[in-house]
Amino acid sequence: MKLKVYADRMSQPSRAVLIFCKVNGIEFEEVRIDISKRQQLSPEYKEINPMGQVPAIVDGRFKLFESHAILIYLACVFPGVPDHWYPADLFRRAKINSVLDWHHSNLRRGAVTYVVNTVLGPVLGLRPDPQAAAEAEKLLSSSLSKIESIWLKGNGKFLLGGLQPSIADLSLACEIMQLELLDEKDRIRILGPHKKVQKQWVENTKTATSPRFDEVHNVLFKAKARHQEQRAKSGSSSNTNLPSKM
Amino acid sequence: MKLKVYADRMSQPSRAVLIFCKVNGIEFEEVRIDISKRQQLSPEYKEINPMGQVPAIVDGRFKLFESHAILIYLACVFPGVPDHWYPADLFRRAKINSVLDWHHSNLRRGAVTYVVNTVLGPVLGLRPDPQAAAEAEKLLSSSLSKIESIWLKGNGKFLLGGLQPSIADLSLACEIMQLELLDEKDRIRILGPHKKVQKQWVENTKTATSPRFDEVHNVLFKAKARHQEQRAKSGSSSNTNLPSKM
Repeated sequence: MKLKVYADRMSQPSRAVLIFCKVNGIEFEEVRIDISKRQQLSPEYKEINPMGQVPAIVDGRFKLFESHAILIYLACVFPGVPDHWYPADLFRRAKINSVLDWHHSNLRRGAVTYVVNTVLGPVLGLRPDPQAAAEAEKLLSSSLSKIESIWLKGNGKFLLGGLQPSIADLSLACEIMQLELLDEKDRIRILGPHKKVQKQWVENTKTATSPRFDEVHNVLFKAKARHQEQRAKSGSSSNTNLPSKM
Repeated sequence: MKLKVYADRMSQPSRAVLIFCKVNGIEFEEVRIDISKRQQLSPEYKEINPMGQVPAIVDGRFKLFESHAILIYLACVFPGVPDHWYPADLFRRAKINSVLDWHHSNLRRGAVTYVVNTVLGPVLGLRPDPQAAAEAEKLLSSSLSKIESIWLKGNGKFLLGGLQPSIADLSLACEIMQLELLDEKDRIRILGPHKKVQKQWVENTKTATSPRFDEVHNVLFKAKARHQEQRAKSGSSSNTNLPSKM
């Protein structure tokens, strides 16, 4: 039975898992769980992931959720996945685990909270909280600084000085791509000071996973264009730029 | 060269790493990094962990931070650590990774935010934010419910139906022990409805790691007694109970 990946491409951890499968030639069936229709909370989906979140996988009789755990599982059980994604070497693996763990309470928490409390809240029927957005921006900016000064220290193309990407590059780069949904002025204010993140490392990750990276992110670029059009029509923003692809 | 563990026993992930080392007979030197004196932010410590957090380890020339990554590393590289802590079986290992990943944005986020915005803030020189505390309590309560209904589903003694504890049991149980610092009325309101967590699973984890669990938590029990005494003196609380050890 083919691997099933339950995902919504608007969700950054979903995209990381989908890109990983595609880049590594893992045969799978993508089952769309539409977050905007709250399908992740349906009783049927909660049989797959009782936490009601995407992504999740079903591999034979085995069910798994949490994207980092999924990426590690796929890297370990599917033959032919190149070692650089999650090295067998315990020291390199430990460092990748450290980046992945750090991600949760820093880059992810900052980015998700900021996006939800600005552009995505209204789409999901939530009221944005400006104070929460301001605090999230601080965490997000400090996380981007730390990526540059700590994880991207040195001359490597990827996190931890790697010459090839690991699952940490993929997970964190997909998180940063979520900022594409922001108003241009917000996106430039937040990402602008972090050229090494934006212009080098995310680009390197995209190139290393081309053309799958853009293919899976296409939904995000379309959503961005749609939101901008809506905001322009409603007059809440003067910004009608076409979506940057960063 | 002996393993060095940089830790503050007032920090729950520090305690998890210390208990793990002691229970598994791993020889190590404990280096105290006093958070109340902001030693985690000193230039010397930032050479060990540039993120300025505890715990961290140095094993020979190898430095590592983030407690889950540390626990996984220790379980994998130290000979003689029983398999149940982090099983070689990829399916069981994947499920443990899933619990550990879930922990970050749920139980940990709820518990840390609640404790800091109630009892711990004033000790650390931070002003508690009642709205943040109220939101954190919701996340904390919902996380405790999910531990009971999902991770402790069935009749196992430990998370995921285990008969013996894994590193996930240790990490999450140490997080819940942090609630010992709360005022009794708050602790009872939050933990009271979750008997399976409080009376069974945390007790099972404590018993399985006895006497190391209480030994490492002793600092916490003393701090609780001290805080209660201070609050009683300042008249901000009528509660002068001796500390429960849950």
